Amino acid sequence: MNDVIDALKAALGSQVRTGSDIPLRNHADASGLAPTPPKALALPQTTEDVATALRICHEHGHPVVTQGGLTGLAGGAHPQAGEIALSLERMTGIEEIDAASAMLTALAGTPLATVQQAADEAGYLCGIDLGARGTCTIGGNAATNAGGNQVLRYGMARRNILGLEVVLADGTVVRSLNKMLKNNAGYDWTQLFIGSEGTLGVITRVVIGLHPKPQGLQTALCAVGSFEDGLLVLRQFQQAHPGRLLVFEAMWREFMSVATRICGLPNAFEAEHDITLLIEADMGEDPAGTEAFSLVLSDLYERGLIKDALVAQSRTDRNRFWAYRETPYEYGRFLPEEIRFDVSVPLDRMTEAVAHLREEMPKKWPEAIWVAFGHVADSNIHINVAIQDMTDETKKDVQGLVYDLVSRLGGSVSAEHGIGRIKRPYLSLSRSEPELALMAKMKQTLDPAGILNPGRVL
Amino acid sequence: MNDVIDALKAALGSQVRTGSDIPLRNHADASGLAPTPPKALALPQTTEDVATALRICHEHGHPVVTQGGLTGLAGGAHPQAGEIALSLERMTGIEEIDAASAMLTALAGTPLATVQQAADEAGYLCGIDLGARGTCTIGGNAATNAGGNQVLRYGMARRNILGLEVVLADGTVVRSLNKMLKNNAGYDWTQLFIGSEGTLGVITRVVIGLHPKPQGLQTALCAVGSFEDGLLVLRQFQQAHPGRLLVFEAMWREFMSVATRICGLPNAFEAEHDITLLIEADMGEDPAGTEAFSLVLSDLYERGLIKDALVAQSRTDRNRFWAYRETPYEYGRFLPEEIRFDVSVPLDRMTEAVAHLREEMPKKWPEAIWVAFGHVADSNIHINVAIQDMTDETKKDVQGLVYDLVSRLGGSVSAEHGIGRIKRPYLSLSRSEPELALMAKMKQTLDPAGILNPGRVL
Repeated sequence: MNDVIDALKAALGSQVRTGSDIPLRNHADASGLAPTPPKALALPQTTEDVATALRICHEHGHPVVTQGGLTGLAGGAHPQAGEIALSLERMTGIEEIDAASAMLTALAGTPLATVQQAADEAGYLCGIDLGARGTCTIGGNAATNAGGNQVLRYGMARRNILGLEVVLADGTVVRSLNKMLKNNAGYDWTQLFIGSEGTLGVITRVVIGLHPKPQGLQTALCAVGSFEDGLLVLRQFQQAHPGRLLVFEAMWREFMSVATRICGLPNAFEAEHDITLLIEADMGEDPAGTEAFSLVLSDLYERGLIKDALVAQSRTDRNRFWAYRETPYEYGRFLPEEIRFDVSVPLDRMTEAVAHLREEMPKKWPEAIWVAFGHVADSNIHINVAIQDMTDETKKDVQGLVYDLVSRLGGSVSAEHGIGRIKRPYLSLSRSEPELALMAKMKQTLDPAGILNPGRVL
Repeated sequence: MNDVIDALKAALGSQVRTGSDIPLRNHADASGLAPTPPKALALPQTTEDVATALRICHEHGHPVVTQGGLTGLAGGAHPQAGEIALSLERMTGIEEIDAASAMLTALAGTPLATVQQAADEAGYLCGIDLGARGTCTIGGNAATNAGGNQVLRYGMARRNILGLEVVLADGTVVRSLNKMLKNNAGYDWTQLFIGSEGTLGVITRVVIGLHPKPQGLQTALCAVGSFEDGLLVLRQFQQAHPGRLLVFEAMWREFMSVATRICGLPNAFEAEHDITLLIEADMGEDPAGTEAFSLVLSDLYERGLIKDALVAQSRTDRNRFWAYRETPYEYGRFLPEEIRFDVSVPLDRMTEAVAHLREEMPKKWPEAIWVAFGHVADSNIHINVAIQDMTDETKKDVQGLVYDLVSRLGGSVSAEHGIGRIKRPYLSLSRSEPELALMAKMKQTLDPAGILNPGRVL
């Protein structure tokens, strides 16, 4: 039954590893699932190698899990027993920077940080950014339609991707390394693969559109009395300075309370407020921008929308403000085991969502520590729930509470992390039967043998 | 053989018309193809009616052409003999404006101008805008992934669309009236239908994301010595004022010469320059923005990048500047018969493209009047060629010259108008065999009986 491994080794030689030659890193992604060694690991160096590997697996009907930086939280790249792992880690490098067109082409295995640095050196900014930037790959960002902190300004990964090269399940290479913002020549098939989490094809090259570098970054921490007031602040700011906002993050009072009482940060404001906003804007190189930023905030303060505000006067201030938003990275040190939710809720139901948690959480789990925070303008709310000695049953109950709530409010069970293996049981809460049937049809068409990331997404 | 018509009439009653009851408007779109009466016209009032009509046509294997505002230039909505026209003209109306979320839901047949007005009244801007706004429909904009003058700032229609309701070929209704900017719950199947020109399904509802209204619009006309200098002006402006530019149009010297010598506009500048740029930016409500706009331009003038510049001091000035860009709408009055091209060329090949036209056009057709103009940042160039008493053979030769050039430079035969019927023979110049095969597979999966807009795109 090792025909497929033999065939892979015959075609790709030392690019194929088995047994203890497979590094531990390829046994798991960041989802927390139990590490599982893949049956074999293929380390292709070129698109043709990827095509060869997939053709062979397709002929043998053998399942393949595609791996990039292995930073995914939903288990999309986590091996299941018997799968062949196809890691793009050797396919790295920026192939072209076209400064005049503000675009770059990179191999899929290139770390996001390398892409960002290349963009920076060419005088531009890469619009995709997330915490895992040093490890995650641009191909993985495309395959999962990655989000991040700057979605408000630059959109999800989809919006930053102009072209793709993809290897289909049967080894066919399809290429549209498009560098044009306008291209309506037939279907934009690249859209199919963005966000499909490796289930429809393997992305091997990505063309990214770049943005002008922000100049004159301004940062503020603002307190508001309600989510609705926060939204008003957002809209007023956008009206006064269209296109300037980069970051607009909300941290509900439970979040700030954990940050100060448990993680040890100082109180940001004297009084407690329902929501603390972290706002960042690119006010341009003109020094008048600095003044304009403060002016909008003080105007909103005078009108009672903002209850209190701090504007960063230095890089130290900025780091101090961001420290609140980054406390969740430290929760492991301070809190019992957590479940983390990455969900979307329509903006006009957000207050209802948090009110429901405030009512239900203490009733059901009086000892639970829970926080809510997120990217306001994107409808994306993260909810972390930590409970001492959490049983599997409690875990399931907490998931039930949150996902039922999201479903009832017309939200999405996955805002940015994807479905992978972990959220697969909950997909039908956010998608109707006809939608799921259509997705299944796309999967069946592009991967009839079902070899690509089986058991993920659908 | 009129079973299908009988079945439609039985199910939809007076919503189905035949013979002389079909208005002439439904015999043709704006492509210039010879008007052709459809076999019948269905005028559904609800999504359920659309589903009923498609289910019946699917059962009978009968071809359907979907019609919106009929402003398309590529023949996508133009009936072919024997087809049943499905017009969405009675499905109009804004169903919801969610001001807090900056989103709006409209029925597909709603004219773009109605959507724009609703957005305006809610304090927002609709990011989709094109010349046909009064007649074209939001469903047609989605189906063709419409472009326009503001793509630089707000992107193509795709980027402004958050959710869709679509009726599949067999009458299945699929709905994702998503109002969340972040939703990675499974495949974003809506992307399949955007830009598919009615060949994969019929769009019945659209959710549009809205933008803050521009404040303090500034307009300038600038002369530059080359396309490369024009690009530098673009990048410098974006660097100094990120997110501000709305319009950045280039008009090559042949275009300005037709505008002045044939259309009768006054010279914009004393000297003749290779390229005249029409620049528009939203500088914000702060009056300092006005000053900043002029400051960037005068700085670029001092550095020799801009040869001459005029900044609008009034609405009259602004109209005067736009008059140049709008002369092509008047060409019918002044020029012999034209062929109009809507193509994309990678930015670093644009100068080569125009140089080739300058060399070849006078050699081959000394009497031809031709112009080039376009949306610089989007890689989109429009080329109009007018020749007295043009024969079909000459027409074919001119098309050959332009499309071969575009193909050689790695461009796209359709930047924004789509493929429809008219550009179908040229699609393979911009798309490889594997790409075309993948598109055909998508078509086969979603419309196995081939009833939706047959003979368009593929």
